[in-house]
Amino acid sequence: MPKPELLETFPNPYVGRDYEIVMTCPEFTSLCPVGGIESDAAELAALGGGAPDFGTITISYVPNRRCIELKSLKLYLWSFRNDGIFYERAVNTILDDLIRVIKPSTMKVIGDFNVRGGIKSTVTARAGRSKRR
Amino acid sequence: MPKPELLETFPNPYVGRDYEIVMTCPEFTSLCPVGGIESDAAELAALGGGAPDFGTITISYVPNRRCIELKSLKLYLWSFRNDGIFYERAVNTILDDLIRVIKPSTMKVIGDFNVRGGIKSTVTARAGRSKRR
Amino acid sequence: MPKPELLETFPNPYVGRDYEIVMTCPEFTSLCPVGGIESDAAELAALGGGAPDFGTITISYVPNRRCIELKSLKLYLWSFRNDGIFYERAVNTILDDLIRVIKPSTMKVIGDFNVRGGIKSTVTARAGRSKRR
Amino acid sequence: MPKPELLETFPNPYVGRDYEIVMTCPEFTSLCPVGGIESDAAELAALGGGAPDFGTITISYVPNRRCIELKSLKLYLWSFRNDGIFYERAVNTILDDLIRVIKPSTMKVIGDFNVRGGIKSTVTARAGRSKRR
Amino acid sequence: MPKPELLETFPNPYVGRDYEIVMTCPEFTSLCPVGGIESDAAELAALGGGAPDFGTITISYVPNRRCIELKSLKLYLWSFRNDGIFYERAVNTILDDLIRVIKPSTMKVIGDFNVRGGIKSTVTARAGRSKRR
Amino acid sequence: MPKPELLETFPNPYVGRDYEIVMTCPEFTSLCPVGGIESDAAELAALGGGAPDFGTITISYVPNRRCIELKSLKLYLWSFRNDGIFYERAVNTILDDLIRVIKPSTMKVIGDFNVRGGIKSTVTARAGRSKRR
Amino acid sequence: MPKPELLETFPNPYVGRDYEIVMTCPEFTSLCPVGGIESDAAELAALGGGAPDFGTITISYVPNRRCIELKSLKLYLWSFRNDGIFYERAVNTILDDLIRVIKPSTMKVIGDFNVRGGIKSTVTARAGRSKRR
Amino acid sequence: MPKPELLETFPNPYVGRDYEIVMTCPEFTSLCPVGGIESDAAELAALGGGAPDFGTITISYVPNRRCIELKSLKLYLWSFRNDGIFYERAVNTILDDLIRVIKPSTMKVIGDFNVRGGIKSTVTARAGRSKRR
Amino acid sequence: MPKPELLETFPNPYVGRDYEIVMTCPEFTSLCPVGGIESDAAELAALGGGAPDFGTITISYVPNRRCIELKSLKLYLWSFRNDGIFYERAVNTILDDLIRVIKPSTMKVIGDFNVRGGIKSTVTARAGRSKRR
Amino acid sequence: MPKPELLETFPNPYVGRDYEIVMTCPEFTSLCPVGGIESDAAELAALGGGAPDFGTITISYVPNRRCIELKSLKLYLWSFRNDGIFYERAVNTILDDLIRVIKPSTMKVIGDFNVRGGIKSTVTARAGRSKRR
Repeated sequence: MPKPELLETFPNPYVGRDYEIVMTCPEFTSLCPVGGIESDAAELAALGGGAPDFGTITISYVPNRRCIELKSLKLYLWSFRNDGIFYERAVNTILDDLIRVIKPSTMKVIGDFNVRGGIKSTVTARAGRSKRR
Repeated sequence: MPKPELLETFPNPYVGRDYEIVMTCPEFTSLCPVGGIESDAAELAALGGGAPDFGTITISYVPNRRCIELKSLKLYLWSFRNDGIFYERAVNTILDDLIRVIKPSTMKVIGDFNVRGGIKSTVTARAGRSKRR
Repeated sequence: MPKPELLETFPNPYVGRDYEIVMTCPEFTSLCPVGGIESDAAELAALGGGAPDFGTITISYVPNRRCIELKSLKLYLWSFRNDGIFYERAVNTILDDLIRVIKPSTMKVIGDFNVRGGIKSTVTARAGRSKRR
Repeated sequence: MPKPELLETFPNPYVGRDYEIVMTCPEFTSLCPVGGIESDAAELAALGGGAPDFGTITISYVPNRRCIELKSLKLYLWSFRNDGIFYERAVNTILDDLIRVIKPSTMKVIGDFNVRGGIKSTVTARAGRSKRR
Repeated sequence: MPKPELLETFPNPYVGRDYEIVMTCPEFTSLCPVGGIESDAAELAALGGGAPDFGTITISYVPNRRCIELKSLKLYLWSFRNDGIFYERAVNTILDDLIRVIKPSTMKVIGDFNVRGGIKSTVTARAGRSKRR
Repeated sequence: MPKPELLETFPNPYVGRDYEIVMTCPEFTSLCPVGGIESDAAELAALGGGAPDFGTITISYVPNRRCIELKSLKLYLWSFRNDGIFYERAVNTILDDLIRVIKPSTMKVIGDFNVRGGIKSTVTARAGRSKRR
Repeated sequence: MPKPELLETFPNPYVGRDYEIVMTCPEFTSLCPVGGIESDAAELAALGGGAPDFGTITISYVPNRRCIELKSLKLYLWSFRNDGIFYERAVNTILDDLIRVIKPSTMKVIGDFNVRGGIKSTVTARAGRSKRR
Repeated sequence: MPKPELLETFPNPYVGRDYEIVMTCPEFTSLCPVGGIESDAAELAALGGGAPDFGTITISYVPNRRCIELKSLKLYLWSFRNDGIFYERAVNTILDDLIRVIKPSTMKVIGDFNVRGGIKSTVTARAGRSKRR
Repeated sequence: MPKPELLETFPNPYVGRDYEIVMTCPEFTSLCPVGGIESDAAELAALGGGAPDFGTITISYVPNRRCIELKSLKLYLWSFRNDGIFYERAVNTILDDLIRVIKPSTMKVIGDFNVRGGIKSTVTARAGRSKRR
Repeated sequence: MPKPELLETFPNPYVGRDYEIVMTCPEFTSLCPVGGIESDAAELAALGGGAPDFGTITISYVPNRRCIELKSLKLYLWSFRNDGIFYERAVNTILDDLIRVIKPSTMKVIGDFNVRGGIKSTVTARAGRSKRR
């Protein structure tokens, strides 16, 4: 289970200026809840669970009162490692969890997942609107 | 013949949030209906059909009520393998078939086909409009 | 002399849907009318004509009633091979010839020519306007 | 079934000089005999056969008396399209078939296959020895 | 614990010809036994174990009597996922386990691990000797 | 401590024309104030200070009356070398210091920092607005 | 001294159509007026002048009545070779000189200069406005 | 017809030292003698000859008494432009013609030709032996 | 001053097998002892020391009895940060220090330093000999 | 005229160890003695001399008693700027001048010159022999 309680924050040192923070984690991994596009039941029995998924998570936001502490983000993303979760849910869950702890002006989360069954998937979710480009 | 009946869907887990899903399949192949830019009749007789085409299909959409199940998309795209079809028709057919099963807010299909006769072709079709960038 | 009479067309299979077709030909070659930036008279006498130019021609358009047949486009572009023509004229001639045969909603032709005299040139001509991005 | 009878040859125009010919085909496709690493029985039933494999075949050889005719090689490689064959067998079969028709001084065939189950495979087979690098 | 018992083999279809098979898995992950270069005790307590490592494993071999079955290799490599193991040991263990099941003529295993503490590590282990390059 | 007093300026030679200057410094380094995502207390004791951070600073601006002298910018950026500072503060400090000395029409500072704990960070701060793109 | 008198023009062959011409010269070199960021007085004495600068000049414009003749542009850019000139002045001078001889609808000149003192500089100047993108 | 009589030479300025000269021409074009892999008779009738081939010719040699004059090499390679010639013959002809005029210690000619029928071809011919690497 | 006393080692877990370990540190920085190619006395006075150098250090070795502990290597390389040292000396010092603590079968150290004065430098030092490639 | 008297040296700090130093200068420029492949007499009259050549000079050597001082190498290479010299002579002259001042164990100089007349040239000269790779 992802552990949003691992997330820590610190006060935005430049409240009042619109600036953007982008954090990219190319080492995201989770499990597929039902074995997924490339596995069958025999494989899962051998492993005792779902097949692993891999991807890159990119989080960009304009902070409001608080920023995400980088080390705690690392631990939070590690907490998906043995969690069975679909791509769409993982990306939207990360967006929800981060919004809850820092209430940013705007935030975007992109999950760019590795090829499965010859198909590559990307999921992009957003909250809030940029005041300017 | 492409088999849209292979397509399966699942309920959008985040109805109400505008988020985008992109699926890229670099292993699309079909046959050219009349031999195409690089083949003559003798070749086709030898093969018993049209010359193979290769390309990458990229599908991006903002889901509405339902999402496309990835494994079924793989099978659907495989079903073009021995089908004689022009580039323009393939891209527009995929767009039509997918819209029919998930009725997305917006959808774009890009077919990026390999060089034939020293010319590379790309076909891009869209349905619906983005509410925002 | 370029031969626009080589161009053939076929009916747009999806009249009514705005979709875009891009064709890229990296093997375009013509001759420079007066020897060009890198040649002198002695060289041209040796060759019996102008110095060769090389480039990539990219054609993108939103079709209206008809589309360009790919094999005939290949032959049409080959017909510039021994023609003495400046970059600006080549790109605009291709745009004019293609518009005449298919009357597209919008069309853009880009000629991206190889380095001559240490300088790389690109010429981009457009006709019509996109209704949307 | 691969059709070696499609292969045609022509006399080496420079018998006596050791020179090397390399032909690369990035559009090789075949079927996996038993569904392969990413498919299960249900998928195969839907398709009526094995899952598609994709790869690049590279053939390099020093000719002896005869060379491989390029167009016939294209047709020969197309003949694997609906054939169920393992990677190791495909590469070794191509090597055997080509050696039989042109008896080269040396030949190497490399099959560089797309990712399946998160694993990329390459198979390299050789016959004869280079006299020099 | 890695599970070598997951590895399956099949008979080499071309015994007697020296050919090479290369399998590359860019999705290898394990845990660091003591937290590793980038973690401290507090982090590990939060996770209940060691910090994750990521890397690409490349296996190349000249088969003798038997080859490694690709799907079983995938499952075997997945079995390192929650195992605490150093880079040097992981690479040498994979080499030992694979040699035991297929007794190849020669085999090389390369582990190419992601940056940790600003340092990237690669470990390469070999067994047997190539008869020729 | 960063030394803004090192910054020198020269009169904009083209007052009245909107033009843009971009300066990219891929050799920015500072120290992390509390050891940061990849260090623990023992390491810091060994070093007598915070762990080093590395990144690329990109500054783009439309000048008003004065421009930044390049050599003095180099010295100013060097002055962060042994300074303990967070990413967000470094980028915003550079923006503030440069605005103070040249009062540009618009200015943007991007800090693109190296991977730490498997996560890459970018911070982008802006002041003023472009009159046109 | 740059020699704008070397610039020659020819009549725009397609007056009335908005098309764009881009010319890129990666072989621009000039001297720094006072030795610049990487030189001291002793070096300059040894050379008898300023330190060399290198960069790429890119000129893009929508022609009006006349176009720039390519060979004369090459000679004009060569004329900066032994001229001591700052980046900002070089780019704006080229823009001024070219505007004077062809009075284009719009023009943009970009100077992309090599790393000096670990810092890379780009200067972009524009005149006129695009009527459309 | 290729015109070896265009080739000019100059005396090697460093006779006695083994040094290597490599000349790469990415703008080689000729015609295919019988229409080639991608053309049929109807196309050829339209063009009045064979289909164009494109490639890069790389010539490397250790000079003996004389070197190849670069401008004359350019003219010589241009003379293949309207010549119908197979890849193997083109490369070996260039090698023969150049050896005849400069009698180098060693020479290698590589023809790297564009994709035709989905297949890329490279031909490499050599004469003489390197005394050392 | 570099601090070799920071280096720690651990026993080679596979004594008797020749395997290679490569560690790449792209974040090496030191100071130039006398200001170096791009600095003059005034700059150094401003900084209170030499100008910073940046580079990538790559260490590859075949272990004997002991291996280098990765975290301690990181600290050791950090210890050059405020040390004035020439490229040649830095690379040879690292080689000497590492050999002293682990006595490897063979070791190679490469320092690949950033452009200074328009010149890029690489220094490669080796000890011991590979028994095989 | 190149000025070898600008070259300065310093004592090899590691006499007795075979190590390699590589220096790459991508900003080499000289003039062509007779106008060269892309210029005619009229152009040269306009410039008052030969056409400029551009290239990258790479120098690698194993030092003996002395090393080349980097700043003096920069000044020496600058001294070719207004010198009319052929590629072959430039590379061999640099090799001769450097050998004279440092008498290295082995040295190699590569001149990699920009495209002229659609042809790229590289000249490689060597002196001495490596004792090992």
